[in-house]
Amino acid sequence: MNMSTISRESYEIVEGGSVTSPLGFKACGLYCGLKKSKFPDLGAVYCEVPAAAAGVYTTNLFQAAPIRVTRDSLSQEGRLQAVVVNSGNANACTGQQGVEDAYSMRNRAAEALGIPAHYVAVASTGVIGELLPMDKVLSGIGQIPERLSREGSGDFCQAILTTDLVRKERCVRLEVDGKTVHIAGAAKGSGMIHPNMATMLGFITTDAKIEPEHLQRLLSQATDITFNMITVDGDTSTNDMVVAMASGLAGNSPLHPDHPDWRAFAEAFTHVAEHLAKAIARDGEGATKLVEVRVKGASSEEAARGIVKTVIGSSLVKTAIFGADANWGRIIAAVGRAGYPLNIDTVDIRIGDIVMMVQSRPVPFDEEKAAEYLKTDTITIDIDLHDGDGQAVGWGCDLTYEYVRINAAYRT
Amino acid sequence: MNMSTISRESYEIVEGGSVTSPLGFKACGLYCGLKKSKFPDLGAVYCEVPAAAAGVYTTNLFQAAPIRVTRDSLSQEGRLQAVVVNSGNANACTGQQGVEDAYSMRNRAAEALGIPAHYVAVASTGVIGELLPMDKVLSGIGQIPERLSREGSGDFCQAILTTDLVRKERCVRLEVDGKTVHIAGAAKGSGMIHPNMATMLGFITTDAKIEPEHLQRLLSQATDITFNMITVDGDTSTNDMVVAMASGLAGNSPLHPDHPDWRAFAEAFTHVAEHLAKAIARDGEGATKLVEVRVKGASSEEAARGIVKTVIGSSLVKTAIFGADANWGRIIAAVGRAGYPLNIDTVDIRIGDIVMMVQSRPVPFDEEKAAEYLKTDTITIDIDLHDGDGQAVGWGCDLTYEYVRINAAYRT
Repeated sequence: MNMSTISRESYEIVEGGSVTSPLGFKACGLYCGLKKSKFPDLGAVYCEVPAAAAGVYTTNLFQAAPIRVTRDSLSQEGRLQAVVVNSGNANACTGQQGVEDAYSMRNRAAEALGIPAHYVAVASTGVIGELLPMDKVLSGIGQIPERLSREGSGDFCQAILTTDLVRKERCVRLEVDGKTVHIAGAAKGSGMIHPNMATMLGFITTDAKIEPEHLQRLLSQATDITFNMITVDGDTSTNDMVVAMASGLAGNSPLHPDHPDWRAFAEAFTHVAEHLAKAIARDGEGATKLVEVRVKGASSEEAARGIVKTVIGSSLVKTAIFGADANWGRIIAAVGRAGYPLNIDTVDIRIGDIVMMVQSRPVPFDEEKAAEYLKTDTITIDIDLHDGDGQAVGWGCDLTYEYVRINAAYRT
Repeated sequence: MNMSTISRESYEIVEGGSVTSPLGFKACGLYCGLKKSKFPDLGAVYCEVPAAAAGVYTTNLFQAAPIRVTRDSLSQEGRLQAVVVNSGNANACTGQQGVEDAYSMRNRAAEALGIPAHYVAVASTGVIGELLPMDKVLSGIGQIPERLSREGSGDFCQAILTTDLVRKERCVRLEVDGKTVHIAGAAKGSGMIHPNMATMLGFITTDAKIEPEHLQRLLSQATDITFNMITVDGDTSTNDMVVAMASGLAGNSPLHPDHPDWRAFAEAFTHVAEHLAKAIARDGEGATKLVEVRVKGASSEEAARGIVKTVIGSSLVKTAIFGADANWGRIIAAVGRAGYPLNIDTVDIRIGDIVMMVQSRPVPFDEEKAAEYLKTDTITIDIDLHDGDGQAVGWGCDLTYEYVRINAAYRT
């Protein structure tokens, strides 16, 4: 998917837009008793018609029960009408009872909404190894139909958060066949809940008409270069999931790769995914900065992606950025251990627009200017290997005292 | 190399022993002006006869100049009489001039000691991207012959340190053919020097008689299960190197894999390497604890090693241990993302002797007892996958505020 020829003007950002901006969608968030904080801990996105749907899931072998159930739902028709999400309890490492509980969530929601069970997806995030308090969850799900509204997206965004500091939403619109199409998304990132781990959840809605197979392919491609290119601490949750739903109510002729507006749609869709992914990285635990690493000139796309991830995942690079230290040595050392062949004599490294290394040799630079740049809240690192056409971009954050505090001290 | 049938009694630890305990070795450490601190920054180990020698090197593609020179020396006869090490400057990313400087170090040492140039190995650790101040280095090397002594090992150990907090030495002895053989080692671990990275250096001496090819094989095998199984922060330096030298002065018949005392010797040699590796992990930057991760029941040795490294490298596991939090969820999540197939229903996890998880399900445990155990300075995590015969052990440390401080704040 080469998008370089599509200008930003193919879509526009809808300020204040949300997952209910696309036609046909409602949402809600409510408190059912899973969190101590009394903030919303149960949410749903509902589509008034069966929406074409697609999903991508964690590669962690210990996939949580809700992932199993959502996969099951999607495998039947590739359509969904509702996704129900709880925070506060991940329903992970909960064995057969956990799977039964996830199915109960699904069945209760289908019953309350009057739709087939396989039109419901479920997701959970929070504590692992504890069974869901099903009385609270089922009673909460029973309230969903009366709570759903187009204004409910704010509560939905709130309900899926754990220790995230900010809500993560994005909405764009574009023309397809002369019809206005919306694409919107909401996500949660890396929050730590007793006693457990970071989970990423993403939900994308659109009113475009598109068959499930094309939506799935687009979601998978977009995820590869967005959600799969972020790293907070290298740990992959058991519960990660991104689900997309397309209501088809915008009235366009069905989108597919040969449709004249396909590339514009794909770019807009990818923009929503990228925006959410970057928001997750920036809001990583303890993070003070978003770090964007761009590799080009790699021997392959795969090498470029691997090197991006190694650099962005390096604790030494992350702490240097926290310390506003223009430490090119840690960057090139990370490049060298990433495990991909490269020409060791042709590496250029730039931090922001400050050149640090040319042809694998350090060059003098203005330390003061570099330190000033590194104190800003968005840092880019450009690495040109001059060794091929492979390129990739990824996002992460700095490693701070606060990361250690959040993850070490919460029991004490 | 299965050592399980060899008892600890095959060798004994020599308290106060050092790299000069094996017959034929002398050492020294002196200040030549590379460090601001005036602590020794140049050291050497010398053998009065050409010693059988072996080396293992970093896998980082950006290997520093001294590694290139040491490889060259060893490739000629597989024998060394001296290894010269400086701290304070890593001579890495220094291009052709750096390679020439490393050769000059080698040649100056050979000349001063009156030995062939290819009997000299060189190693460097410290700042990268800066040229060595060769006047200081060469003048320091000129002093080596007069400084060498059997008592010089303490100064040598000091001279190779960067920000390590403690010296790392080990010496054992055993009988080979009824003769007493010594094996000793010194190492430096992860210290951070402006503006750079952790480097591991190890030096092993023995007076056993053994041909270079067998010593190389033993060093490679021992490194695989010791130095290569430690993780401080996942970053691999450009300068990592372990060199072994065998003087042959103990008078034993040459050791080889069919020699009746081979296994005892191999075990003793591996013990020295393991002791140094664990000392490096325990003294990792900011570390307060040594963490030992043991995996058994894996589908292969490779899977076991990969899982050990993923668990021990997980920032979430490391911060939990710093916080004395018995967080089995982070451990099983790391197991699940390590990238090796396994039976997801048969995983047992123990921290110390406290069982946390049986058959992939959490079990109740005494939280107070667990927290107490996790406050000690050596933590073991046992993971049994019940899925094969693969097993591995590795070592790391916790992730602390001090790690962030050392790596973020040193310029400010």
